[in-house]
Amino acid sequence: MPDRTDAVKHLLTTGAIATDEALERLLPGPETQPHSIHRAMRHSTFAGGKRLRPILCIEAARMVAGTPEPPDGAARLGAALEMLHTYSLIHDDLPALDNDDLRRGQPTCHVAFGEATAILAGDALQTLAFQTISDLPAPPATVVAILRAVSIAIGTGVGADLPGALAPGMIGGQVMDLESGGKPPTADLVERIHRAKTGALITVSIVAGGLLGAAEAEHPPSADTIVRLRTFGEKAGLAFQIVDDVLDMTQDSTQLGKTAGKDTATDKATWPAVYGIEQSKADASQLIADAFEALTTFGEAATPLKSLAQYLVERTH
Amino acid sequence: MPDRTDAVKHLLTTGAIATDEALERLLPGPETQPHSIHRAMRHSTFAGGKRLRPILCIEAARMVAGTPEPPDGAARLGAALEMLHTYSLIHDDLPALDNDDLRRGQPTCHVAFGEATAILAGDALQTLAFQTISDLPAPPATVVAILRAVSIAIGTGVGADLPGALAPGMIGGQVMDLESGGKPPTADLVERIHRAKTGALITVSIVAGGLLGAAEAEHPPSADTIVRLRTFGEKAGLAFQIVDDVLDMTQDSTQLGKTAGKDTATDKATWPAVYGIEQSKADASQLIADAFEALTTFGEAATPLKSLAQYLVERTH
Repeated sequence: MPDRTDAVKHLLTTGAIATDEALERLLPGPETQPHSIHRAMRHSTFAGGKRLRPILCIEAARMVAGTPEPPDGAARLGAALEMLHTYSLIHDDLPALDNDDLRRGQPTCHVAFGEATAILAGDALQTLAFQTISDLPAPPATVVAILRAVSIAIGTGVGADLPGALAPGMIGGQVMDLESGGKPPTADLVERIHRAKTGALITVSIVAGGLLGAAEAEHPPSADTIVRLRTFGEKAGLAFQIVDDVLDMTQDSTQLGKTAGKDTATDKATWPAVYGIEQSKADASQLIADAFEALTTFGEAATPLKSLAQYLVERTH
Repeated sequence: MPDRTDAVKHLLTTGAIATDEALERLLPGPETQPHSIHRAMRHSTFAGGKRLRPILCIEAARMVAGTPEPPDGAARLGAALEMLHTYSLIHDDLPALDNDDLRRGQPTCHVAFGEATAILAGDALQTLAFQTISDLPAPPATVVAILRAVSIAIGTGVGADLPGALAPGMIGGQVMDLESGGKPPTADLVERIHRAKTGALITVSIVAGGLLGAAEAEHPPSADTIVRLRTFGEKAGLAFQIVDDVLDMTQDSTQLGKTAGKDTATDKATWPAVYGIEQSKADASQLIADAFEALTTFGEAATPLKSLAQYLVERTH
């Protein structure tokens, strides 16, 4: 299907460009005082990430708005989500946590700038993400709804059991991952960690995009729009992480741009460690099929998001 | 003046109780999964802080609202500001930064819970503060204005030159402090660090309280209300930090509840290091007089805030 592949590549390229342009404007320049932290923030933000979360956010916003172009502010919201992703990577890579020297083929933040600056650069990226959300060109009620969804998604899970809230938060997932080290992984634990550690931010990227798009839509979107987006995000996000686990076990460090096999070496909770590689691949495919199901009511307008989800499970790095 | 002293003690006590009640409700319990991070967040949050920022926030909100009781949500907003203060202390105490073992007479977070959990507990407190702001019982436009002011105040200084923005941010101050270590402190640098590292959060506590109070006021407050609150906060915040520096040089560790003389020992940028102790005390008094001046238009309603500021420079620990 060359057409669909080309279409996905186009989405990925234009989404990444829009995100990078927004990040370039939002992040202080390398000559802005104090230098060290702004250079550290840029080092990790512009280290070659695929911008998947922003691209999912932009496409969800476009789909819900029902406009040819994504609504104003979608790329900035995407940039805020990428800042949150980057902050979590910087802190996760620290010596006290995963102690990783290499990320996307580059030295990690603490290797390049020292531990103190890396800790503060992560902190500052979280803060700048929230500042960026506060400046979104959207009705205040929409901004508050986005703020609420995002803060729940990246926290420890507080409020995650409330109506309208997302699954356990990103930091909660990091803690569960930390605490699981050395113990034999169980199916339940692996799923909980994946849903929290990476799933929550991916899901909220789609939900937040949908909230922004709903404010711009000519016709108010149907009441279950956000619920459908959340289901799509949860399924696709889990599939994404399963594929990540599989790639970690089947590829070498050069292909991955990070230390391969690290998950196995440290007895980390991964999907293939519980289910094996073949079953993991099958699970990822089934999850994508379930994700597609959640978007049926959107018809043709859902094609970009569905193509992106398909790409997530078919990627090889 | 026994009356005024009693009145301040009453403000401090009732404000601290209201803040602690809000924090108790907002922070997940020690039995909430994952345990380690929630216990670490509570350890540092309930370590005997004076709750100055929340109390300033609550009193600013009450003054601007012009009501006998503080507006609904003032204590929760105060609690969010205390979470931000606590997060900054947890990260500042880490081995890679100030490497402090003792804070308010208790083991610091990383000593009690390990470095990884301390890093994530700080992260989660920042996130929970923003989630708390998103849930404030105030008009969405007020919530967005508070979010914007707070995120600028605790960042690296991005947006601090925009109209309505506050002075350089808290993380910017931490970085400047870090970079200044070992160099002889200059007057300009010390003032910039103090205004950013501690002044910005104190100032925004008063400004955010004022924004919340303005939304509740029967009569719309005058246009320069927020500017006046900011001036008051900047002056009182700088005075507060100068007194902190002086106390660090003149008291022992038991009185302070932290390692005394540490600032001098590590050649940190402090006010007395540049101006000497007597001039520092005089400067603090002058700043408080300037802070009072900014509140003259509020008349009698400003008495609580002014008494609190006076207390800040007269305290002995």
